[in-house]
Amino acid sequence: MSANKKARTHPPYELLYWPGIPGRGEFIRLAFEAAGVSYKDVSNEEKDGVKAIKALTSPTSIGTSPNPPVFAPPALRIPSEGKSASDLIIYQTPSILSYLGPKLNLAGADEAESAWILSHTLTALDLNNEAHDTHHPISVADYYEDQKEEALKKAKNFREARIPKFLGFFERVLKGNEKEGGGKFLVGGKLSYADTTVWHVLNGLEFGFPKEMEARKQEFPLLFETFYAIVQEQSGLKEYLASDRRQPFSMGVFRHYPELDRQ
Amino acid sequence: MSANKKARTHPPYELLYWPGIPGRGEFIRLAFEAAGVSYKDVSNEEKDGVKAIKALTSPTSIGTSPNPPVFAPPALRIPSEGKSASDLIIYQTPSILSYLGPKLNLAGADEAESAWILSHTLTALDLNNEAHDTHHPISVADYYEDQKEEALKKAKNFREARIPKFLGFFERVLKGNEKEGGGKFLVGGKLSYADTTVWHVLNGLEFGFPKEMEARKQEFPLLFETFYAIVQEQSGLKEYLASDRRQPFSMGVFRHYPELDRQ
Repeated sequence: MSANKKARTHPPYELLYWPGIPGRGEFIRLAFEAAGVSYKDVSNEEKDGVKAIKALTSPTSIGTSPNPPVFAPPALRIPSEGKSASDLIIYQTPSILSYLGPKLNLAGADEAESAWILSHTLTALDLNNEAHDTHHPISVADYYEDQKEEALKKAKNFREARIPKFLGFFERVLKGNEKEGGGKFLVGGKLSYADTTVWHVLNGLEFGFPKEMEARKQEFPLLFETFYAIVQEQSGLKEYLASDRRQPFSMGVFRHYPELDRQ
Repeated sequence: MSANKKARTHPPYELLYWPGIPGRGEFIRLAFEAAGVSYKDVSNEEKDGVKAIKALTSPTSIGTSPNPPVFAPPALRIPSEGKSASDLIIYQTPSILSYLGPKLNLAGADEAESAWILSHTLTALDLNNEAHDTHHPISVADYYEDQKEEALKKAKNFREARIPKFLGFFERVLKGNEKEGGGKFLVGGKLSYADTTVWHVLNGLEFGFPKEMEARKQEFPLLFETFYAIVQEQSGLKEYLASDRRQPFSMGVFRHYPELDRQ
């Protein structure tokens, strides 16, 4: 474990996700890192840790009572925090963030902010899924090369219709919250897990669609000049992003196929 | 408003969603109906109610302070429940359900159950999205007929790989919770918004893919013989499903194109 992680004042959280890529696990990592709260990234930190991920999502598992089975990673294990002091296991990115948010002080100041933070996070994760589907429009289990023709069509629609729709929305969220958030935060006056989630999706889009994003940036000044630039400088995030714990994008959700980018 | 709705003991909730189809608004309707809690379905109950939906999701709106803009319906308006007694507006189906769940007594008995209920709901909504994408694999804004070739491929993969993966998962969730839930409930010993959400997706799949579902049912006995059969008989749901408030499936998320079903 890196020396950059702060001492534990929380349960010994364990993130269960595939090793070597940011993937959907990254949204959980960013929340912990922004909060300065320690966690074990099991498959990246433990020899054979990936076995735990495979066991967790076995297609024959009925869960480890009282925990249900897990459809897909990421999952979060919190030792002794479940029923009758059993380990608690939660899956689905938004569910994990919703659970962690208040505990990490990243879920806003009241019930209204808490709801909006989850809403914007879900919208960013929809964009994340649509980015994934540009290279896998027909079947997630088959090769990109076997669905490339459809991917070219899907990516064109994604660049021309979906990217501006989503980015325009987040620009408007920032604008509506400008008095309190100053363009730096989507909800209220401080960092939330919605900010870290939207930030990572933007970062992934810059990796996957660099020409498209370069051409689009100026349309969304609050989003890129203020929000994107400032979120990555937040204490905890800045150190993490410069560390070797931050996995580079490669062949995960965000992929750089030049033929899918703006030509 | 129908006489079947019970008297108000809650805030005057308003559902903001497109009229005439179940769509994603249905997951919110089912939660209210199962709880016996009154709500106004604005676009179906008010003349010109659809104008409110259009205004809400205007592509130039920055929200109605302090509420943020809404990316897409459904949204829920709760008069006087926001900051400084303003109206609170929440969007994104899972965020609305997460907010309503404890208030409607549909969110489980403790923090662990509450997290699992949200997780399973998110998984069912992923299946809902994948069902939608079978008829719109390339572009949500274009006609089915213009992406039919890709739809045939996507639907084949959906039927052969995705439907059994998701249904098998929910069968295992029921199995893992059988001691407490008796196959009737996904989490714990009583109805939750995960149950109503999974139920509606199954109902939609039966409409969209009747041959596929008929052939598959026997593989998942707990899911169909117990869960599906019993959830629709629950008090509140049974009356709703027999009422004219339940919109029939037509050209929304779930569509019946025979060429996309098992041949």
